[in-house]
Amino acid sequence: MATSNGFVDGTSPESALIFLGSGCSSMVPNVMCLLQPSDPPCPVCVQSLSIPPERNPNYRCNTSLLIDYCGDANAGDRKYILIDVGKTFRETVLRWFVAHRIPRVDSIILTHEHADAVLGLDDVRAVQAFSPTNDIDPTPIYLSQHSMDSIAEKFPYLVQKKRKEGAEIRRVAQIDWNIIADDCNKPFLASGLKFTPLPVMHGEDYICLGFLFGERNRVAYISDGLRVPINL
Amino acid sequence: MATSNGFVDGTSPESALIFLGSGCSSMVPNVMCLLQPSDPPCPVCVQSLSIPPERNPNYRCNTSLLIDYCGDANAGDRKYILIDVGKTFRETVLRWFVAHRIPRVDSIILTHEHADAVLGLDDVRAVQAFSPTNDIDPTPIYLSQHSMDSIAEKFPYLVQKKRKEGAEIRRVAQIDWNIIADDCNKPFLASGLKFTPLPVMHGEDYICLGFLFGERNRVAYISDGLRVPINL
Ligand SMILES: [Zn+2]
Ligand SMILES: [Zn+2]
Ligand SMILES: [Zn+2]
Ligand SMILES: [Zn+2]
Repeated sequence: MATSNGFVDGTSPESALIFLGSGCSSMVPNVMCLLQPSDPPCPVCVQSLSIPPERNPNYRCNTSLLIDYCGDANAGDRKYILIDVGKTFRETVLRWFVAHRIPRVDSIILTHEHADAVLGLDDVRAVQAFSPTNDIDPTPIYLSQHSMDSIAEKFPYLVQKKRKEGAEIRRVAQIDWNIIADDCNKPFLASGLKFTPLPVMHGEDYICLGFLFGERNRVAYISDGLRVPINL
Repeated sequence: MATSNGFVDGTSPESALIFLGSGCSSMVPNVMCLLQPSDPPCPVCVQSLSIPPERNPNYRCNTSLLIDYCGDANAGDRKYILIDVGKTFRETVLRWFVAHRIPRVDSIILTHEHADAVLGLDDVRAVQAFSPTNDIDPTPIYLSQHSMDSIAEKFPYLVQKKRKEGAEIRRVAQIDWNIIADDCNKPFLASGLKFTPLPVMHGEDYICLGFLFGERNRVAYISDGLRVPINL
């Protein structure tokens, strides 16, 4: 398995991990450091705009991982599995999908329902084929019941199956919602790859999911947690 | 009044309009034109990544306007009034606020509650002073009751006044919500400037607000409408 410190071109026979973002919820730079600079100015945020984002360790988008999966089962047929679709989703697609020649997203997994993990869901349509009548293959999304309930409030038009009588046709993302358990004993498959949920405490009253995956190499991805429960 | 075809530096004695975005809901480039190019490729979208966004007519963010208002009443005290906070809000702040030396946002007006007009609201905190306890001056937002109801579902943490007992402190935008009427006979003031709502039909069953403003020069801003009602 390759990680994306160098450029992979999407045709290597190996699986790869592409870190689309590794910043906090409000991303880096901190806008205030630029609009109302301190004296001396914050060196991190000043540098974040002086070097192009694709070569800049101080320009960081919301945490998100793309798994370029080339499993035995796929036999040359690659699958592209995305973890989280935050506020910077489209920006990272423009930057990294184009550079790494990623042609599409096959399935999506959500860690939790905060803005930095889901607020890009409106733009999932950007990685789906165009149809004026929305008659396209839905993209499977795997998420907890808690995340589902929240997303149904935030994005009712992505969840409801039928348009209201007389409502205008809007070109919206077509999604196949799949509920997963907050339970490390309940693995699930996304695009043929097995994921084991790793529930962690985001705050004292809030669960966020990490995931364990990989066959030849085991990878644990935990993007937004304060505390790992002792019984994990 | 100056418009932003050239660079204004935020210190001119005139008011100015800065068009933060003039693209459609899914912005330009169309991601699919880049991930799965046609033959020949779409020239607009190919060009959209080959020139830096700040000099590129084919890199377009969600429609949004910043009014740099220097009224008589303000006497040198400028006010920065933003119309719409869509998906690309933070991206446009990084690009245009820094270039035009805009230090803050004083008030916000929303045209409607679709993703391309409101999905950046989580990042309003980026243009607010930092306080670990959220004890900061709220930014006034002017919006219709319909938009308010929708935003209360999408962003409950931006609307509720009190944290739940035991809930973790999250640093969220502090907002003072102000309901305006969908009525061209009910003008309102934002940061001392008078705005007259111009309700237009977005689709047959959906109202979006445009706005008429300006004292010496009259400006009508209508960003997302299919039909202007005959009785306007
Ligand atoms: Zn900084
Ligand atoms: Zn979170
Ligand atoms: Zn195109
Ligand atoms: Zn709209």
